Order: sequence, then C-alpha cells, then structure tokens
Amino acid sequence: MSSYHLSESKSIAMMKFLALCFFVISLINIPIAEARIRHYKWELKYEYKSPDCYKKLVITINGRTPGPTILAQQNDTVIVEVKNSLLTANTAIHWHGIRQIGTPWFDGTEGVTQCPILPGDTFVYKFVVDRPGTYLYHAHYGMQREDGLFGSIRVALPDGESEPFAYNYDRSIILTDWYHKSTFEQAVGLSSIPFQWVMEPQSLLIQGKGRFNCSAANPPMKADVCNNTNPECSLYSTTVVPGKTYRLRISSLTALSALSFQIEGHNMTVVEADGHYVEPFVVKNLFIYSGETYSVLVYTDQDPARNYWITTNVVSRNATTPPGLAVLNYYPNHPRRSPPTIPPSGPMWNDMDSRFNQSVAIRARKGHVYSPPASSDRVIVLLNTQNRVNGKTRWSVNNVSYDIPHTPYLIALKENLLHTFSQTPPPEGYDFANYDIKAVQNNTNATASDAIYRLQLNSTVDIVLQNANTMNPNNSETHPWHLHGHDFWVLGYGEGKFDPINDPKKYNLVDPIMKNTVPVHPFGWTAFRFKADNPGVWAFHCHIESHFFMGMGVAFEEGIERVGKLPSSIMGCGETKHLLKP
Amino acid sequence: MSSYHLSESKSIAMMKFLALCFFVISLINIPIAEARIRHYKWELKYEYKSPDCYKKLVITINGRTPGPTILAQQNDTVIVEVKNSLLTANTAIHWHGIRQIGTPWFDGTEGVTQCPILPGDTFVYKFVVDRPGTYLYHAHYGMQREDGLFGSIRVALPDGESEPFAYNYDRSIILTDWYHKSTFEQAVGLSSIPFQWVMEPQSLLIQGKGRFNCSAANPPMKADVCNNTNPECSLYSTTVVPGKTYRLRISSLTALSALSFQIEGHNMTVVEADGHYVEPFVVKNLFIYSGETYSVLVYTDQDPARNYWITTNVVSRNATTPPGLAVLNYYPNHPRRSPPTIPPSGPMWNDMDSRFNQSVAIRARKGHVYSPPASSDRVIVLLNTQNRVNGKTRWSVNNVSYDIPHTPYLIALKENLLHTFSQTPPPEGYDFANYDIKAVQNNTNATASDAIYRLQLNSTVDIVLQNANTMNPNNSETHPWHLHGHDFWVLGYGEGKFDPINDPKKYNLVDPIMKNTVPVHPFGWTAFRFKADNPGVWAFHCHIESHFFMGMGVAFEEGIERVGKLPSSIMGCGETKHLLKP
Repeated sequence: MSSYHLSESKSIAMMKFLALCFFVISLINIPIAEARIRHYKWELKYEYKSPDCYKKLVITINGRTPGPTILAQQNDTVIVEVKNSLLTANTAIHWHGIRQIGTPWFDGTEGVTQCPILPGDTFVYKFVVDRPGTYLYHAHYGMQREDGLFGSIRVALPDGESEPFAYNYDRSIILTDWYHKSTFEQAVGLSSIPFQWVMEPQSLLIQGKGRFNCSAANPPMKADVCNNTNPECSLYSTTVVPGKTYRLRISSLTALSALSFQIEGHNMTVVEADGHYVEPFVVKNLFIYSGETYSVLVYTDQDPARNYWITTNVVSRNATTPPGLAVLNYYPNHPRRSPPTIPPSGPMWNDMDSRFNQSVAIRARKGHVYSPPASSDRVIVLLNTQNRVNGKTRWSVNNVSYDIPHTPYLIALKENLLHTFSQTPPPEGYDFANYDIKAVQNNTNATASDAIYRLQLNSTVDIVLQNANTMNPNNSETHPWHLHGHDFWVLGYGEGKFDPINDPKKYNLVDPIMKNTVPVHPFGWTAFRFKADNPGVWAFHCHIESHFFMGMGVAFEEGIERVGKLPSSIMGCGETKHLLKP
Repeated sequence: MSSYHLSESKSIAMMKFLALCFFVISLINIPIAEARIRHYKWELKYEYKSPDCYKKLVITINGRTPGPTILAQQNDTVIVEVKNSLLTANTAIHWHGIRQIGTPWFDGTEGVTQCPILPGDTFVYKFVVDRPGTYLYHAHYGMQREDGLFGSIRVALPDGESEPFAYNYDRSIILTDWYHKSTFEQAVGLSSIPFQWVMEPQSLLIQGKGRFNCSAANPPMKADVCNNTNPECSLYSTTVVPGKTYRLRISSLTALSALSFQIEGHNMTVVEADGHYVEPFVVKNLFIYSGETYSVLVYTDQDPARNYWITTNVVSRNATTPPGLAVLNYYPNHPRRSPPTIPPSGPMWNDMDSRFNQSVAIRARKGHVYSPPASSDRVIVLLNTQNRVNGKTRWSVNNVSYDIPHTPYLIALKENLLHTFSQTPPPEGYDFANYDIKAVQNNTNATASDAIYRLQLNSTVDIVLQNANTMNPNNSETHPWHLHGHDFWVLGYGEGKFDPINDPKKYNLVDPIMKNTVPVHPFGWTAFRFKADNPGVWAFHCHIESHFFMGMGVAFEEGIERVGKLPSSIMGCGETKHLLKP
C-alpha cells in the first residue's frame, strides 16, 4: 500500500518523503488486520476535470476519477454507501467480476437487478468478495461509465495464504479511452436518425491520465478549456526500485477501444486473468479488452539511471486515437522526468494473429485448474450482427437487438410483473446453414426485444459467440462479452463460422481458464461453458459502452424461485410502484 | 388556431397556403366542440437543436421546443401522458398558474409534490383548468426548464361566454433567455467552491427563436456548431392583417433576465395578467419578469407595406446579452422580410421608475374585482439576501437558504415520514430593527434548511418580500416570486425597508390585481395576501432558475389532512420506498 501511494506523488519533496516512508515500512512486517467489513462512503458528483488536459464534466467519487480502490480480503463483506449528488441524473454501480452469490439485487445493473439510484438518495450496496483477485466497479446505467465513474477492486488472500507466484509490490492500473463530448451528446447521436457515430476517442488514459494535444485542436481552444500545462493532466507515473518484482493489475474499461499495453524494455509475465491464476507466459505486448483484468509480473532489471515509457495503443480498429503514455519511474529519478527515448510503438492495429494467439495462450495455472463439466445441457449460439431496426443503427444477437427494460427483471420475475417484458423467448441460434458471416447482410428481419433466456438452475450452458460482418463490407469488430454473476470456462476460439459438429471436439476441457469477459475476434467465434448455479437475473453483453447501448446484450435468469426477499432499496421505478401499500 | 399555425410558416409557399386557409377559416364561424377532456401524449427527449444558431442539446417535447400549446376551455380536464426518454435524467413538469385544486399531487414540483419521473417511465398528469387565461408549463426539476422544456397553456372561456375586451386573433409568445452551456455545466459551476457564475445569457429567444452572432464567437466556431444560415434559427415571424386587433399572450420563462417587450410602431393595451383581467392601460414597453404572463391587445394600424420589429431586451441588469428580435409580418409582405428600420432600442436597463410604475399600474379590471379579506391572520416577512453557506454562494430568505428535499413533502406529511425534513419552523421575519437592507451584510449566521411553513387551512396570510443588498456593494436584484397552488392579491409595492406599522395602511384593498408571480424590485418590498384554502404543499420561490437552485424559495403546507389518497405514480424516491409492501 505504501508503494501504491508513492505512485501518486506530485513533487520531488513529496516523492522524497514517501520514498523514505516506503523504505521504512518495507522493513517492517505489518500484520494485516482481520477486518471482515470494508465500509466505504461515496458521494457521486459532476465536476469539471481535465484528465487529458481538456476540461469537461466528469463523474467523480469523493472528488476523484478513477474512484477509490476497494481493498479487501477474501470473504470480507464490502459495504458501499453511494450518495447520488448528480443533479438530475440517476446512477447504478456494477461490481464487475463479483458474483453476488446470495445478493443478486446488489449486482448494480439498472433494468436487470435494480431501479436506478435517484439524485438525493443514498443506496447501500453490501456483498461478499468470495474470491481473491483483480476486479472492477463502474456505472451500469446509460453510458455513464464513460463519464469516469469507475475504479478497482483488489481482493487479497486471507492471512497466512499466499499466491502461487512471488512479488514485492502490487499496483492497480486502469486503462480507458476518453471522449470530449458528454455521454448525453454521444447517446443522442447514437440513437438519432440518421445515425451519428461517436467517432474514435480523443485520448487514451492510463489510470485516469492522458494528454490531448491542445495546440492541435481545430478550431483552437482557449486555455481555460484545454491547457497542456495543467497539472491535472500530468502523465501517470509509478515509482519502482530496481531489482524488485511488481505485480501490475492491468484492467481495461475502455468505451470502445481494444488495447495493447507495454512497458518499454520490460517483459511481462501474465499470472492472473479476471481473478483466476493463469499458467504463466511472457509477453511484450499485453492485449486487453474492455472488461478484462490481468495481473502481470514485471521485474525491474533495467538501467536505473532513467525512466521508461508505459504505453497503450488501439488495436483491432484503424483508429485516430494517439497512444496513451505513462512513466515507469525508477527511483531516485524524478517521477516526471521523461524517458530519453521516443515512446516505442505498439503492435500493428491489424495484427489479428498475435491477438488470437494470446487469447488461446491463456490457460488455467497448473494446480489451480477447476475442471468444467464434461458436457452441457444447452447450447445457445449468439450471432453478433449490426442491424438497422426502425431506421436506427443497432447491434444485435441473432437479429434481435436488446432493449433494457425499466422495470428490473429481478423484481418483475420475483413479484410476478411478467407483463413488463416480452415473454417470447429470444432465439437460441441463427440460420446456421444459410447465413454468410463474411458478407454484408441486409438483416431486414431484425427486431428489438427485452426478452430474456431462462435457464434451468444448476444446468450447464454452452455459449457460442459467432462474429460476423457489420453493415460495412469486409468489416467485423472485436466484441468483449462480459457475463454477470458467473465465471465461465473458455473452451475455445476459432476463425470463421463455428462448426457445431466438429469444433466442440476441439474444446479445451483440460485446463480452460475461467473468466468473466472474453473477446470474440473479427469473423471468428468463441465458446464457453458455465454452470447456471447463481439464482438471479444476470446481464451478458458486449462491454463496449456504445454497443451495449445500441442493443448488444442479453440477460439470463436462473432459479428466481430461490432468490431471497428483495430489498426495497432496489425498487421505485416502472411497475415496481404498484408494489406500494394501498 | 389557424392564425397560430400561420405564425410558424417557414416558406413563401407555406405562407401563401396558410394565408388562404386563414381567410377561408376566418369567414366561417366554426363552433368549438364542448370537449371536456384534452388528452396529450408527449415524449421528452434530448435532441440537438439550434434555437439561436448555436447547436446544443435541448429537451424537446414531441420533437419541439417550445413544446405544444395546450388549448382548453374552462373546466376542461387536461390529461398529459409524459414519457421520459431523457436517457439517464429524470424530470417533472409544473403547470404554472394552474391551482391544482383537489389534485395537489399533480403540481409537478419535484421534492415538493412528487418524485421525479424516471427514464422509461410514463407519468400521467390529470387536472382541471378551472379558470380562463394564459398559463404556462415547464420543467420543475434541477435547472431543466432552461433546457427548453416549456410551453403555453391557453384556457378559453366556455362556449357562449366572452372576454371583457374584443379581439380578432389570438397568439401566444414565450420569451426566454438562452445559454450555450448545458444545465449540468451551469449547475456544477453554481454549486462549486469557488463559485462559478453562469454569466449573462448568450441570447434572448422569442417563441424559441433567436440569433447568436456566430462569426463574432471567440474562439471561432465551426459551421456545424454555429451557423447563422441555419433555417432552425430564422427569426420568429407572426403574420397579421391590417386593421385587426390581436391578443398577444406574452409570457416570460427566462432563466435570469428581466425583460422589456415592444413592437415597433405599435402600442399595447394590457388586459390580462396571470389569468386575471387588468384595468386596461397602454404601454409602449411591457416589462415582464420570469413566470409572468400578460395579454396585450395590438391594433394593426400601421403602414401595411412593410414589416415591423418585435424586440425584447434585458432590464434591471446591465447585461451583455443582445436584444432578441422577431418580425411582425404585415400580410402580404414576406414573413422573413426584414423591416426597413434599425430595431428600436428598448428602455434603459436601469430605468427603475418605469418598471416600478408598471407594477403599481396593474389593477383588477372594473367589474372583475375579487375583493381580498380585509385583514390577515398571519404576516410572514421574507428578507431576500445573498449569502455564503458552508463556503458556497447561496440565496436565502431570512438568512435561511432553501434545500429541496428528495422525499416530497406531500408524501412525507401524508404518510407520516416527518423525519425526512427539518421540523424546526423557518423564521417569520428578520431582525427588522437592526438590519440595514442597503448595506452589504456578512450574514455569517446564514444556514440552509428544508423546513416549511405550515399554514392554518383557510387562514389569510400576508407575505412581505423585502429586498436587500447582495454581497456586492450597491447592488440589489429583481426577484420574481411565484406561488404554486394559489393566486394572491397584490397589496402594494414600496421602496426601501417595509414599515410594518405604516405601509399596511397604504395597501390597495380596493382593486388589487390577483397574480401568481410578482417582482420585488431592487431595494424595495412587495406585499401580497392569499387564502390558504388549497390543501396540499406548495412551493413559493424566485422564478430565476439559478436563484431557486441556489436556495431562494420556501414551501407552504395547508390542510394536509384534507388531501385525498395519493397516487402511487408520484412515489418511488427517497423514503417513499419504505411504503412498499413487505
């Protein structure tokens, strides 16, 4: 923890003081208290901030974006009191990667598990973090995540237990992309006829810091709007000492961009993905998709007389967004001292093979393999397509674009308000025989629906994500799909159209990694398996903010009859008002 | 009605067609149907619009701002189904001037009479318009009114009854001022430490149209952001024929500005104010404050070979906002043809005497005088001051700045949730003997509270608004105060400090006008009387959007025990969730 603070030092004086603390504390073996409740009080506000030197309204938690890191130990109970001071806007916060076993109502997904939190209200989330690892939290309402409402959750092992890998220090770094338009403006454009695309992000941020080139803005911007000397947008710098091993917990919460992450002159050993131990492998570039978390080990074995660039760049899209930069600061160099090199460029945006290979390389660590069930009870194939529905551009699965309801499913199902959403089950697949995934389809049969998949409790479900061409020729995008309430076993990735006879024979049932977010690569497919063993209703969606907003998601129900009494705090919207006392 | 549509004609072809319709329809005496229900279905959305040529997000009703005019007859029931499609933002709509007798829960005042309407929800307002006259509707949540969510309500007399004045045609014109920043940005500035003032508005709009000088913008704006050739910002033009009398219903819903309104070359005879008949008087400049409505009669007796300027300009503040322009189009001139003159300038901003004199001149029309009770049961003096509370700049009455609660009073009082707001009564007055209203006071004893005034049902209450110096030397602002749920008798205006012994002796008890909105002039006082005869909870506040947001308001309760069963639709926020079934 001391080293974590170090990374935020802002001046030489502070740096020297903290470096001193750091050495002193590192000599003392402080026992971690057996605290079982981690209590946080947060106030959410709109504030002017300049994360990339451009001043705009962001959503802060206690004045900050990214918000405070939640630090807990396995089996702790986390309580977060969220006070909404967002003027006229509601909110909801999702605890990404936390399965919410026994507390499906605190998953924080507006429309699925709760009504939104109204301005002036304080909502109390309370859940158990039952597994160690690297998780996230973020807004799950409209496109608010992009306003900066996110942060890290780090769950440590219980006292006396240790990870299957060694490291000296632990850091969390969230990667995001950043738009200058408000999310209201973006959302209006995305739902307009004609469609107004959000375009590529203006910046990439590393732990909430980036650098937009104010002087290149056209038309020019005044200095009170964009100012590259504003200390608020000084690059993120993390201080290290030579000869130590650092665990870097790298997460992505990009709105749109798939990223590569690299540290000049340093290899990274991947050891964790989405809270699960990975059979270690070494990379120079870590590919990471929105919603994923990784831990990498970095050994500080380079020339300590200088600093090194940390960079991230967009892959999978031929984007205009410049790379994001940060500084790996070798103590005692000044943390703001630029490395003497030009920031190294990352991999080519269209190097699909490298990305595909990394996906395949991620396996469960030996000795930490949780074996999947040998077979599944149900297979759902989800064709990912772009469509036009009632004149609007939408994303769909199996030609059905998803509409988020405003009476949350969890309440509707538990309180028998079934009229609040479509009871026509969504399709289990698409026209496999005739659909050409490599061609532009007119998809004129596309519709929108808020129907959900209802799963047998404790059944085993296989999901096959099938990618396809968008509405543009020779174009297929990478979609990172995130499942709430569960981890799943990643059984395989493939190129082209999934073969339901032969491809399952190649599934990895030996050492599949468990994850909660997985990409489906352009024109490819991804298959995974999960146990529907968590009573509740759970979103499953593309983690690209605009894609989910445009309908790229579904929801799964399982064991609703086993869900306990719902807290009244999640109610208040839509038909739940009919539950008021007469 | 036909002439109303005419005023929106956009092209010569349309103009000619409508002019034809106009002549045809004016020859036919169409009987107005005795419709008792006026049913409207509205969808509220954020959309990009360019009301003054600058493109920004506004709130539209069915695609328009100003929204549709509600046309009804006395004693009709108006039903408005409001669908909130504002993404992540709530809303609430107030029916300004409608007393809501028997339906206090449909006054539309968030925090006072209802919970906000959530995105995805449809809220049904249903109320009786029990008096003829000119009224308004607008958002009453945060600062949303300034986003363009407003419109006119015009209530006609029943069939067979006629006004005490004659006119040929009837038009509604709403005056507003317009900011380029979003209301989120404005609100964040206003609640920041240090305080960031919203500044003067960029434009004045006449019936939703204005003209910002794009080419003078600094830094320059791209044409897709600001474009003076955009037809969306062509000036408002209203077509008239010579030799006719036009009833113009002029309303102000400015965010900040007090206005003067004038029509080049034409006198205006004031005949109605806030739904009450005025003893006619003639003006060249009509002073109008936010929340007020007036009807003026204009006789089209000028040279019909040309058009005439309609102008509005800021008074009471030495503002930078340029005058607003529109065109009085004498048929058959082209409605967009500029008058051959330079738009005449209005009165000087600091001509206080003229404004004061107009206030005093407004009396009830002979034969239409409703006599006030001869005396009151209670006098509440409300000192208007600017204060600093906990480091924030606030507006206050009696040194108490108003916090809007988020469990609406109406529900809290009816359902016995008294812990949701302060039960310490707010002060009935200020330190009359010692307070110097002409000096900057440090007001260090200022506090904030959500307490309300509880009035005896059917008692008679006098309110004395006492103006004072702001936190700037030699500065006192004009505040238009609006009372919900009632009209009041305007008893008098004065300069300086109200004398509680002698000034009441000068009250006008003979022919006071009834109003719902009244200004208190700089360094002056305004006294009015009302009967607390409408069971419910009613806001009373400065109608300047930023002033109310900064605490310039109070609330009155009367006869809560007589309020009928509350509809569940107004619930869902704050402590009202505790009313859910177990």
